[in-house]
Amino acid sequence: MALLADLPRNEDGIATALDVLRQNLGAARVETGQALREQHGHTTTWLRNQPPDAVIFPTSTEDVQEIVRTCAAYRVPIIPFGTGTSLEGHVNAPAGGICLDMSRMDRILAVHPEDMDVVLQPGVTRKALNTHLRDTGLFFPVDPGADASLGGMAATSASGTNAVRYGTMKDNVLALRAVLPSGEVVKTAARARKTSAGYDLTRLIVGSEGTLGIITEMTLRLQGIPEAVSAATCSFPSVKAACDAVIATIQYGLPVARIELLDALTVKGVNAYSKLSLPETPLLLLEFHGTEGGVAEQAEVFGEIAGEAGGTGFAFTTREEERNRLWQARHDAYWASLGLRPGAKGISTDVCVPVSRLADCVAAAQEKAAEMGFVAPVVGHVGDGNFHVLLLIDVDEPTEIAAAEAYIGWLNDLAISMDGTCTGEHGIGQGKAAYLEAELGPGAIAMMGAIKRAVDPLNILNPGKMRLPD
Amino acid sequence: MALLADLPRNEDGIATALDVLRQNLGAARVETGQALREQHGHTTTWLRNQPPDAVIFPTSTEDVQEIVRTCAAYRVPIIPFGTGTSLEGHVNAPAGGICLDMSRMDRILAVHPEDMDVVLQPGVTRKALNTHLRDTGLFFPVDPGADASLGGMAATSASGTNAVRYGTMKDNVLALRAVLPSGEVVKTAARARKTSAGYDLTRLIVGSEGTLGIITEMTLRLQGIPEAVSAATCSFPSVKAACDAVIATIQYGLPVARIELLDALTVKGVNAYSKLSLPETPLLLLEFHGTEGGVAEQAEVFGEIAGEAGGTGFAFTTREEERNRLWQARHDAYWASLGLRPGAKGISTDVCVPVSRLADCVAAAQEKAAEMGFVAPVVGHVGDGNFHVLLLIDVDEPTEIAAAEAYIGWLNDLAISMDGTCTGEHGIGQGKAAYLEAELGPGAIAMMGAIKRAVDPLNILNPGKMRLPD
Repeated sequence: MALLADLPRNEDGIATALDVLRQNLGAARVETGQALREQHGHTTTWLRNQPPDAVIFPTSTEDVQEIVRTCAAYRVPIIPFGTGTSLEGHVNAPAGGICLDMSRMDRILAVHPEDMDVVLQPGVTRKALNTHLRDTGLFFPVDPGADASLGGMAATSASGTNAVRYGTMKDNVLALRAVLPSGEVVKTAARARKTSAGYDLTRLIVGSEGTLGIITEMTLRLQGIPEAVSAATCSFPSVKAACDAVIATIQYGLPVARIELLDALTVKGVNAYSKLSLPETPLLLLEFHGTEGGVAEQAEVFGEIAGEAGGTGFAFTTREEERNRLWQARHDAYWASLGLRPGAKGISTDVCVPVSRLADCVAAAQEKAAEMGFVAPVVGHVGDGNFHVLLLIDVDEPTEIAAAEAYIGWLNDLAISMDGTCTGEHGIGQGKAAYLEAELGPGAIAMMGAIKRAVDPLNILNPGKMRLPD
Repeated sequence: MALLADLPRNEDGIATALDVLRQNLGAARVETGQALREQHGHTTTWLRNQPPDAVIFPTSTEDVQEIVRTCAAYRVPIIPFGTGTSLEGHVNAPAGGICLDMSRMDRILAVHPEDMDVVLQPGVTRKALNTHLRDTGLFFPVDPGADASLGGMAATSASGTNAVRYGTMKDNVLALRAVLPSGEVVKTAARARKTSAGYDLTRLIVGSEGTLGIITEMTLRLQGIPEAVSAATCSFPSVKAACDAVIATIQYGLPVARIELLDALTVKGVNAYSKLSLPETPLLLLEFHGTEGGVAEQAEVFGEIAGEAGGTGFAFTTREEERNRLWQARHDAYWASLGLRPGAKGISTDVCVPVSRLADCVAAAQEKAAEMGFVAPVVGHVGDGNFHVLLLIDVDEPTEIAAAEAYIGWLNDLAISMDGTCTGEHGIGQGKAAYLEAELGPGAIAMMGAIKRAVDPLNILNPGKMRLPD
């Protein structure tokens, strides 16, 4: 696990900065308990824990500025933390330093129903936002698996099952404010829905994984809760047949809100876990959002397309209870998959390829996993060409960790060879750092490195992530 | 016109670079005819012409690299040029230098129907692309007024009437390649539809107005040509009533493809120009894209919403000939507006505000224009809160130029005070440079400046645009 070597620590600087911050913020706010620190180096994957030296919970932009200025003065790393649900070691502290847990900056500052946007602090989670919005008829569509903080979702450019219709965080953050390594606050855009005013700093900070600035305020686009929703499911003889149906559906222009694939192994897990009796072959699950008439028509058109691609067992409904039943397999997929190898931990891969290459990529991934002896169910946000192989491994067994690492590397290389990416939605962090240059080449790495050095010349913001050249 | 002061020229460097390029590319390729140079400093607005010293038409990435390396060696400005239809002086050469006219890099390299994307060179225009795509059932939706080059559209982050449904260039460029000031080529992203791999260099270069890199290849998202299209129009007693209908339509979730406003003065111009007899009050024009049943239903729902907001004379159709008739007022709006003051030139403003502020902003803009004695019709892409006041002035009359400049500044400030932007789709260039800091504050300007210096330390790429701090 060479990737996870610790980086050199600035021991004196860290000690001094902690003293100064204790002085300025109050000793109690600079928390150093071991359990808390380890929890804040939380990784949900195969990467080992590298806890920060202290955790501080800022409650205001001024707090963040104070901490950043102190850390800049003593060259101490700062690791911004949302809910710790990122998957590629984004919140690890390989050079130590101070974790800024943003969870107490969780105020919703303004909802603008006419403009369909919301201004909020980064610690608000996506579910908390949608609960808050319930009476407005609006919702925020980006839905990664976890109830992540919106600041963390922006920092890692998260997405989820709705992205095929509503886009990713890149498409849904209208503007943000962030504290730069200098301690200054940057406002990236006005609240207008469209702008051509200068460099797109919003999207530069979205996905920058806490390496350019610490997000302290965001303006997000909202969507109207659809009048009607329909759900549809269909089984297919092969991943290829299912992918053909996906391509035809999108080419036809059906406005799918969600189009998810479960492979045969996942369906098997779901049957066991949820006591269902679905055919143990690849399954597509769809959702349409629109008018009553529209969503029924769309589901039926999909049924025809699916039939032409060899699909069987097509079912659809517009009733909520029935929808939940049809989608149960998807909702249970993660836990059901874990049940395929009791006691194992699931390590998620995250590649994304042009949709035309998806069937080939999934088939090769399944074959390779079988060849290497993995139990490895697959789920995919297939409208975008994005899928996850869940490697079920015993994380206390170094040979299994090594095999998982080898498999992930192999799959990253395969996706890249298909003009795809090693990460569709999880980000680079520590886990994918070795693949960024393979994907984009030296020009992009050099440009990203130049930007990083220009904005953060002391390299204090989340060092060791993305591994850009010094 | 302080903005348009010439910048210091590096006379020796320019002379040497031209000699070297004549040597290396052939003398005939380094064109210096005055008419050609003036045409390449083309501005369609009140900004005066500042021609480059020479124009070169590169035909390959290698050409671009050769020119960039030579210009870097002798510190000579480079101004990338698409079709010269930008509106804010983007292609002026205030410090002289070499214009790279990209129009001969106009090959479509690959269409991927299954992935709904296209790979092409930057000199392809939007209409040429759509002609090429006609048989594929796909189209590229971004539609600024001019038949601009796609490279220029990316560089200025262009949009148009379709943006409310299909987004702007920021949403439709999947990946690009650009030659950096170092002469290196950067590849910003793979061809997958979604990525979280590193900083979003694609969107950093989109909208950077040729100041960070010269785009040499792009991958664009395509859309399926809709099965059916409906058009609807409705008159309103006031801009406020029309804007209320816009807000209600979008909140309802109607998937409008276009929603355009003509103010009463524009309608008056259209009646005269096209011999129509529309009520001379604000007019909304809409288009819906979808299934036969869907688009008819949507137009009818809009009719109800419009009626509730006080609209009259609602008309809709799904037939193509009839659609063209309903939309004629919009298609003729520009030329009809010029007819309101024969011999005058139209100077376009371009502010964008949150939709909730749109009615106030348009009303104030009309009032101020009347107060200042302008003939100034208004058209708006109102679903996005973006509108253009067209100031009809005699550009040979310095007092009119000065008044137009004052009005534009007043309007920019007003939009900024409403949490809007001084440019929704035209960009900053020279014309809006004084407003960028007012809009975003010193933090953003400093960050943009740091990025610019990091990527282009010699400031050779399109100097004098955006006026970022050195």
